[in-house]
Amino acid sequence: MDLSDKFARGQTMFFRFFADAFFAKRYGHRAVVLETVAGVPGMVAGMWIHLKSLRQMKTGYGPIIRELLAEAENERMHLMFFIEIARPNWLERALILSAQAIFWNYYFVFYVFFPRTAHKMVHYFEEEAVSSYTNYLELIEGGQIEDLPAPQLAIEYYSLSVDAKLSDMIRCVRADEQHHADVNLRMAGGREREEAKLSAGTNQATGDPNTTGAQA
Amino acid sequence: MDLSDKFARGQTMFFRFFADAFFAKRYGHRAVVLETVAGVPGMVAGMWIHLKSLRQMKTGYGPIIRELLAEAENERMHLMFFIEIARPNWLERALILSAQAIFWNYYFVFYVFFPRTAHKMVHYFEEEAVSSYTNYLELIEGGQIEDLPAPQLAIEYYSLSVDAKLSDMIRCVRADEQHHADVNLRMAGGREREEAKLSAGTNQATGDPNTTGAQA
Repeated sequence: MDLSDKFARGQTMFFRFFADAFFAKRYGHRAVVLETVAGVPGMVAGMWIHLKSLRQMKTGYGPIIRELLAEAENERMHLMFFIEIARPNWLERALILSAQAIFWNYYFVFYVFFPRTAHKMVHYFEEEAVSSYTNYLELIEGGQIEDLPAPQLAIEYYSLSVDAKLSDMIRCVRADEQHHADVNLRMAGGREREEAKLSAGTNQATGDPNTTGAQA
Repeated sequence: MDLSDKFARGQTMFFRFFADAFFAKRYGHRAVVLETVAGVPGMVAGMWIHLKSLRQMKTGYGPIIRELLAEAENERMHLMFFIEIARPNWLERALILSAQAIFWNYYFVFYVFFPRTAHKMVHYFEEEAVSSYTNYLELIEGGQIEDLPAPQLAIEYYSLSVDAKLSDMIRCVRADEQHHADVNLRMAGGREREEAKLSAGTNQATGDPNTTGAQA
C-alpha cells in the first residue's frame, strides 16, 4: 500500500469515526447528512477539469466532466430521497452548513494538488457508503427498522414499481455508490484492480441512471 | 433602468472596451479568448445552486442546475471550435490564465451576493457576443476574412453538412449565444421583456443543442 493509498484510507477512517460516534445506528439521518457531503467531490472535480480544459484549450475532457457532474447530481438525488425518510434536526442542519463549507474548500485544494489521491479517497468513501447501506438493509430485513414505502421521487427516478419499499430504494442507491466507487478508482489510475473487480461481478449496478445517460 | 441594470451594463461596457482595444478586428482570436471566459458563469452558478440545494435540502433545482451546466459545456464547445480557426499566441494564453483566475473569483463572490445582477450581466455579455459574431459574419460575407471550411467538431456538434463553412458555424454559435442571453435574462427575473422579445421572433436558435437535451 503506497502513501497516497494510506492517506486516502486514513482520511476515510477519520470521517467514519465521527459518523459512527454521531449517528450510531440512526442510518436514515446518517444518510441525509452524508449525502449532503457526497454531492461535493463530483462537482468540485467536474468544475476543475472544465476550467482546466478551457485554460489548456484541449478537447477530450467532455466524457470525464459529464461523468463527474452526473455523480454530483446522483448524490443530490439520494439526498432528496432520504429527506423523505428522515427529517434532519436543527443540530444536523447546522452540521451540514459547516461540513459543506469546510469540505468544499478542503476537497478543492486537495483535488488541485493531488487529484489521484482525491479520487482514491472518494473511492474509499463510497465503499464505506456501500457497507453502511448494507448495514441499514440488514436492520430493515431484521425488522428493527420499518420498511416504509419508497418515496415517490425515488420510484420515478429508478422506475420502481408503485408499491416499492425503502429497502428496494436502498438497494438502488447502494448500486449507485458502488458505481461511483469503481469510477473513482478508475480515475485514480487503478484500472487493473477495478477490472479484476468487475470481472468478479461485484458491480451489478443495474438501474443506475449514470450508466445509461449523463443526466437522467 | 434600475441600479442593478446600470451596473450590469457598465461592467459589460468595461470588458468590451478592453476586448475592442486588444483584438480590434481579429475576431477569431477574440472569440478564442472570450469563450474561455464565457465557460465560467454557467459553471459557477450551476455549482452554487447545487450546493444551495444540498444545504437547503430542497428539490426542484434540477432543471436550472442542468441548464446552467449545459451553458458552460456549450461555451466550452465553442472554444474548441474556434481554436481550430485561430491558434492563440503566447500573450493570449497568458491573458487566458489570469483572466480565468480573476474572473472565476469575481463572478463567484458576485453571484453569491447578487445573483440577479450577475445573470443580467451575463445577459448583456451574451448580447455583446451576438453583435460581435454578427460583425465577424459581415467581414466574412464582405470577403475581408476567408470563409474557411468549418472544423469537423463543429460539423458533428451542429449536424452541419460536410462542406459547411466557418460562416455556417458562426451562425449556429450566435444562435447559442442568443439562447444564453435569453435564459440569463429570464433567470434575472425579466420574464416580461424576454417574452416580448421571443414573440418578436429574434430568437431563432434552431440547431441549438441546449433546446433538445441537456448535454449534447
